[in-house]
Amino acid sequence: MNIRKARKEDCPRILELIQELALYEKAPEEVTVTLEEMEEAGFGNKPVWEAYVAELDGTIHGIALYYIRYSTWKGRRIYLEDLIVTEKMRGKGIGKLLFDQVVEEARSKGYSGMVWQVLDWNEPAINFYKKYQATFDSGWINVSINN
Amino acid sequence: MNIRKARKEDCPRILELIQELALYEKAPEEVTVTLEEMEEAGFGNKPVWEAYVAELDGTIHGIALYYIRYSTWKGRRIYLEDLIVTEKMRGKGIGKLLFDQVVEEARSKGYSGMVWQVLDWNEPAINFYKKYQATFDSGWINVSINN
Repeated sequence: MNIRKARKEDCPRILELIQELALYEKAPEEVTVTLEEMEEAGFGNKPVWEAYVAELDGTIHGIALYYIRYSTWKGRRIYLEDLIVTEKMRGKGIGKLLFDQVVEEARSKGYSGMVWQVLDWNEPAINFYKKYQATFDSGWINVSINN
Repeated sequence: MNIRKARKEDCPRILELIQELALYEKAPEEVTVTLEEMEEAGFGNKPVWEAYVAELDGTIHGIALYYIRYSTWKGRRIYLEDLIVTEKMRGKGIGKLLFDQVVEEARSKGYSGMVWQVLDWNEPAINFYKKYQATFDSGWINVSINN
């Protein structure tokens, strides 16, 4: 399994994995992002997101997509937006490889840390994160206005 | 009250307001960001954050600080990181002026929306956001690893 930075030509497969996960979560209609928007936002004039992909024999089986957030208390940090492994390849440690790579990215770039969210009922994920001495801060509501 | 984009020379005052709020929240030691880091992250080679400031007679009384987040479902959105009005100027509608300006920024730039977080016990804030037909998504834990 080769872990490498995502390239523009990976975007169709990345979007496929995002859609696969949304289908699994029974919310496929929520994915309104287009391939063009994703390519522009990742590889255009002002790139916002980056990703690592897990590749085997030319096929991408998993992704870890992140961007730089700005904490007014801690400065620049990596926000891990999505960690996805295609269903038939789960349970092989691919998610951990990708996760560790993003942790390493945050360290090597000198950011103050890495942040992400987990649902409060997702015990297996919470137990996984505890192994990293992660800090948990509960009671938050995500609020949004859609244009 | 003049609402305008933040400039590099506003950073010392912005940091002061951030520290004032942290003190009010009884967590002043949590603010580990430096002025240099803040200036570099906002006005250096690869700017991450932007802000609007509320200014009267040359003094900044409030800020709304935000950055672009990337949602794999919705594409680019504004994340409102901090909305701060100095204590003695609260209750005059300055917060709403700043908030509305960021909502307008998200619309005019063509982003898919605007996102932020609120603590689940903060009823006055939740009621304020309801007036904007905001969507509330609860049950999230913020997880972090500090480098």
